[in-house]
Amino acid sequence: MTQNATEKRVLAAIGQRREAVNDAIDAELPLAEPERLYEASRYLLQAGGKRLRPTVTLLVGEALADARAGEVDYRAFPTRADGEVDLMKAAVAIEVIQSFTLIHDDIMDDDDLRRGVKAVHNEYDTETAILAGDTLYSKAFEIMADVGGDPANTLEVMRRLSSTCTKICEGQSLDVAFESRDDLQPEEYLEMVERKTAVLYGAAAAVPAILLDADEEIVEAMYSYGVESGKAFQIQDDVLDLTVPSEELGKQRGSDLVENKETLITLHARQQGVDVDGLLSDSTVESVTEAEIDAAVETLEEAGSIEYAREMAEELTAQSKQRLEVLPDNEASELLADLAEYLISRGY
Amino acid sequence: MTQNATEKRVLAAIGQRREAVNDAIDAELPLAEPERLYEASRYLLQAGGKRLRPTVTLLVGEALADARAGEVDYRAFPTRADGEVDLMKAAVAIEVIQSFTLIHDDIMDDDDLRRGVKAVHNEYDTETAILAGDTLYSKAFEIMADVGGDPANTLEVMRRLSSTCTKICEGQSLDVAFESRDDLQPEEYLEMVERKTAVLYGAAAAVPAILLDADEEIVEAMYSYGVESGKAFQIQDDVLDLTVPSEELGKQRGSDLVENKETLITLHARQQGVDVDGLLSDSTVESVTEAEIDAAVETLEEAGSIEYAREMAEELTAQSKQRLEVLPDNEASELLADLAEYLISRGY
Repeated sequence: MTQNATEKRVLAAIGQRREAVNDAIDAELPLAEPERLYEASRYLLQAGGKRLRPTVTLLVGEALADARAGEVDYRAFPTRADGEVDLMKAAVAIEVIQSFTLIHDDIMDDDDLRRGVKAVHNEYDTETAILAGDTLYSKAFEIMADVGGDPANTLEVMRRLSSTCTKICEGQSLDVAFESRDDLQPEEYLEMVERKTAVLYGAAAAVPAILLDADEEIVEAMYSYGVESGKAFQIQDDVLDLTVPSEELGKQRGSDLVENKETLITLHARQQGVDVDGLLSDSTVESVTEAEIDAAVETLEEAGSIEYAREMAEELTAQSKQRLEVLPDNEASELLADLAEYLISRGY
Repeated sequence: MTQNATEKRVLAAIGQRREAVNDAIDAELPLAEPERLYEASRYLLQAGGKRLRPTVTLLVGEALADARAGEVDYRAFPTRADGEVDLMKAAVAIEVIQSFTLIHDDIMDDDDLRRGVKAVHNEYDTETAILAGDTLYSKAFEIMADVGGDPANTLEVMRRLSSTCTKICEGQSLDVAFESRDDLQPEEYLEMVERKTAVLYGAAAAVPAILLDADEEIVEAMYSYGVESGKAFQIQDDVLDLTVPSEELGKQRGSDLVENKETLITLHARQQGVDVDGLLSDSTVESVTEAEIDAAVETLEEAGSIEYAREMAEELTAQSKQRLEVLPDNEASELLADLAEYLISRGY
């Protein structure tokens, strides 16, 4: 199967579930009083997003229950112990956590745009954005607490959701701290990416397994699937920033490099003796030319740094797909493999 | 019993439990990596605080178990169903939530000082303070998830903790929104105070009842005890700002009035036709004289507004003490009554 066919299948699978996910987000997070607070809380969630993490949650559930989209009620999803859980609430809770982290990260990183719209602190103000994030944080836990089924399973999911949030905070803190480090190692960068980005994919995949009474072995395999494909996703982001034309990226190609953002690629290049800081030293995102970026990319290619990152992403993806072997062989588990592949084969 | 004797008993009860609470905070929130993040997260908790809410949690537990401080292991506290829970973790989780809200509130309100030390965003920076608050948020849920005992009880506690946090966010949002309202009613103010301040006292009192398998009637009575005494506490704060000499307050007496902060007192005065905005219209906290404040307070007294607030606080306290009738008659339940009294009889 070509990458293009994989991408088509994944996008179709996401599309098939997106409307239900969007409806559920709206239902689980109604426009309550005080209205301005809830408007700000819902703003980014309503601005779009692929819903990758909720899709992972639903697909793991479908794979374990041997169910097919359209033939199953996510709101009363069958567990192995003949119970029922609201798998859709779990999917929404994960997406709400993701939205909370984006809102607070955008304040911290002073990013003005997100998903093609103004960041929440820019559309409203910083105070409202802090509070909107805090509200989504507690709402996610409220929603997750209400999935039904075995209380011990729900409690375990709540425990994992809270430790996941702690790790996300630690990852963001490391990301900020790394800006002033000149001796950063690739292993440290990967550890940061794991906490900041990948653990939430891990939770998205492990949570449905816990709720459906899957064996511990399956729960851990799903967690690893999520973490590994989430790390690959982030590494691929770094590769795309250098290799995809600006028009397709929707922003200046090589902007990470111009802004001196450390990535797995630059860290590898440093280890190879490349003067990374000198590559685009005098440029700004506005002034940099395609020729300058081409030259910088060529240097990084010659050092084997882009290939190093690409191989790392591919290796992680291969590992993550192996984790799926514990699942029954069905359409949903195949889609989870496709989804891992898509995360590193996608354009921007 | 005079108020002074009540105060002594309450302070002794708090003092008797404070060291254990402080040790537990340190143990449940160790200085992990990244160190700067955890330093910032622990900073305000280590700066002191009366530990009123943890004391409420422990006292409700002691009252229900008919136990005495010093004779019971909070870490293995007996439940009615012959189980054990870690009541100290529950107490710490409540205090950690309180600390998270203070850190984020200080950013939003641009307050530079807290508990006699710099606010976290002032000692560190805004980014670190946002992240420190977020970390405490998830840590509180992690700690609470780990209290042991019946998973269904713990899940119920997690559900209440998350809805409590949502209400606190709503309360803070209302507080900010009220600054630009000129038609605010006392009922709206009380609703804001309930969400912003009182519900966490409610949770502090209800959580131990849930964990110890108390009947629903007792759980709800404890919640009401906490909410009512918490509201009284906040209203008394407004009274003290006008009636306690600056030296005792530790800040300029009447500063709420100078800063045009709406309180139950000013809202009542407006209803009585007092030109509240004209009371100290041209003053700043630096320039205002004691004579000007005396005159303003006299106007508010003549309108019956200070008495109105004081009576409201006393009424709420009396209600809250009645809620304790569901508890066994023992030292701890008497201390809970004293504590409610203390919240409105204290100096600053």
